[in-house]
Amino acid sequence: MNHAVPVSGAWRPTDPVGHRQFLSLDRKLALDSGQVLDGVVVAYETWGTLNADASNAVLMCHAWTGDSHVAGPADLGHPTPGWWESAVGPGLAIDTNEWFVVCTNVLGGCQGTTGPASLHPDDGKPYGSRFPVITIRDMVRAQVRLADHLGIGRWHSIIGGSMGGMQVLEWATTYPDRVSSIAPIATCAQASAQQIAWGSIGRRAIMTDPKWRGGDYYDAAPGDGPHEGLSTARMVAQVTFRSDNVFTERFGRQIVGSDNALKSIDQKFEVERYLEYHGDKLVRRFDANSYLVIGKAMDLHDIGRGRGGLEAAMARINVPTLTLGIHSDMLYPAYQQIQIRDLLVSRGVPAEYIEIDSPHGHDSFLIDLDQVGPPLRHFLANV
Amino acid sequence: MNHAVPVSGAWRPTDPVGHRQFLSLDRKLALDSGQVLDGVVVAYETWGTLNADASNAVLMCHAWTGDSHVAGPADLGHPTPGWWESAVGPGLAIDTNEWFVVCTNVLGGCQGTTGPASLHPDDGKPYGSRFPVITIRDMVRAQVRLADHLGIGRWHSIIGGSMGGMQVLEWATTYPDRVSSIAPIATCAQASAQQIAWGSIGRRAIMTDPKWRGGDYYDAAPGDGPHEGLSTARMVAQVTFRSDNVFTERFGRQIVGSDNALKSIDQKFEVERYLEYHGDKLVRRFDANSYLVIGKAMDLHDIGRGRGGLEAAMARINVPTLTLGIHSDMLYPAYQQIQIRDLLVSRGVPAEYIEIDSPHGHDSFLIDLDQVGPPLRHFLANV
Repeated sequence: MNHAVPVSGAWRPTDPVGHRQFLSLDRKLALDSGQVLDGVVVAYETWGTLNADASNAVLMCHAWTGDSHVAGPADLGHPTPGWWESAVGPGLAIDTNEWFVVCTNVLGGCQGTTGPASLHPDDGKPYGSRFPVITIRDMVRAQVRLADHLGIGRWHSIIGGSMGGMQVLEWATTYPDRVSSIAPIATCAQASAQQIAWGSIGRRAIMTDPKWRGGDYYDAAPGDGPHEGLSTARMVAQVTFRSDNVFTERFGRQIVGSDNALKSIDQKFEVERYLEYHGDKLVRRFDANSYLVIGKAMDLHDIGRGRGGLEAAMARINVPTLTLGIHSDMLYPAYQQIQIRDLLVSRGVPAEYIEIDSPHGHDSFLIDLDQVGPPLRHFLANV
Repeated sequence: MNHAVPVSGAWRPTDPVGHRQFLSLDRKLALDSGQVLDGVVVAYETWGTLNADASNAVLMCHAWTGDSHVAGPADLGHPTPGWWESAVGPGLAIDTNEWFVVCTNVLGGCQGTTGPASLHPDDGKPYGSRFPVITIRDMVRAQVRLADHLGIGRWHSIIGGSMGGMQVLEWATTYPDRVSSIAPIATCAQASAQQIAWGSIGRRAIMTDPKWRGGDYYDAAPGDGPHEGLSTARMVAQVTFRSDNVFTERFGRQIVGSDNALKSIDQKFEVERYLEYHGDKLVRRFDANSYLVIGKAMDLHDIGRGRGGLEAAMARINVPTLTLGIHSDMLYPAYQQIQIRDLLVSRGVPAEYIEIDSPHGHDSFLIDLDQVGPPLRHFLANV
């Protein structure tokens, strides 16, 4: 069964909801930009049961093109299987017999939470180019509303990798009284120039696609959106998500098919086919404007913004912290997670850094769950 | 004075020649693909004087978007200053009082040698999409014709970085009797899957630009070629040419101008402006089809092709070899140059590896000439 979102310029997240739930915010959401969003909807999923004193709640935060679907099969409303399928569930590392696990789709996304493809409450037409710049902090503000709604005053822990880790750090610095522990994984306290460079090239690939049409492409015929640009953007990202060594092992210099490699400039290497597969796959499930808006939020990520800089912001964090890094990660190099640990330890905050020994690069936090799960299980149990 | 090639879809290398010379090949050039090119012209420059027994000739090989202009100011016919300006000249590391230095523009290029923008001899119209797939070996075959023309039976040394290093290795394996020593720098014996991945994304950016028009865009109005795609391709490459650390030091998270960074998704970071500058700069001086054809040649680079593999090919090299690597090079990691040294040393060939200690990444071989020049001077003197 293929529950992929149909490829369409007019794609909107109106498919049936599956396991997802929705919270319609009862008040406007004020953004870092100074703009205000009205009628915001937050899509989320939960696993396990909240206990009587609401002390067993764990928030999981997803990465760039992720969604609220931490665990479970692909289903209506979430086109891919759970992104931590083998780590979150009854008896698993993050044991849903013990913990009440919550995950939202982020603000700006396209899997149920308000984003550029959502309908503007003023005119019932998609936001498109009208969607404001958002920040990781804004994503967290939307999650705070959900926590209030669910009666969760303080999370036992907040966990996330990559952009998920950015949300973790923003929670701990913006709402230090609502967090008992954090686990930021393969992430950073502020986006580096190289990370911004990769992000901006992806945005450029989308925005120079004539079918992007300034962001207002939702009236396009099915299949006629800015898919070439989104696919190229994803291909750039996909290389940075993985590693030189694994590409060499997996693809080497293999040519697609048995034809003469010198026949035509269109003759592809296997690694090219792999990248195109990932580009096409994303196009089928993700909205180009969401990719832009969320990517920009990642580039704008800086927990020190408006707080007197990085160290002043980090000084707001006083809870036990476990940060995981990956030695083969070229996109969020391990030094960025070590920096988080060091800034906390220098102030006496209990913080530990564990390095995942995997060749798979940045995506190791989604691949090598046998190395991610056990330290998290131990951390949750001992906070 | 700005001698940049005008931005134009109809750009052709018909501008005055400056210091360049041209050799029109008197016979057809048979290519690895099985195709044949007729009427090939090779643009080249020389410095110094060939001695009586033609024993002081040094061939320099340029990188992807380079040209024959190793030394000298920007001038008509070569829109950028010499790429090793401070290392090649009278009294410099590669002393043109002693050595007769030669550099060609590569086959497929757009700075005088026959490439996709050249006129097809059959109909006098640009090759465009009709230009064949070429290889590094084909580039070397064109250089062999020039060596014959100049009366150089055997080069004292052949030197080049990046794609230039690929030519160096192809010379030594294809024409072992015509080379007395080689210096391949920041290069590889065969392109890796990750290198192919980066290359293929750049090609995709160009080929999905509607103004590329299948490669036949030379009748476009000035400024109306596939410049968006070429610029995006260059931006991807530019990140891989440099390094995380230097981007952080140079650009950090600086925003262009003093505006609110959250105002608009179009608000740029300084690192974005830098990348766009490099994209725009390349568009003004380089033809998109040449970028494609030469990039494909780099991805096809494998000195083992048709020779029973890498080790069998390397076994053809029996001359003193100096290979330079760069510890911060993410595109051609140092292990690739160490591999070249190791394969030679294992067979008793005198080969040395020297690592350039620079933070500038792959481009260090064009930037830190104070570390490149002295070992080359010593190597040339002691072969």
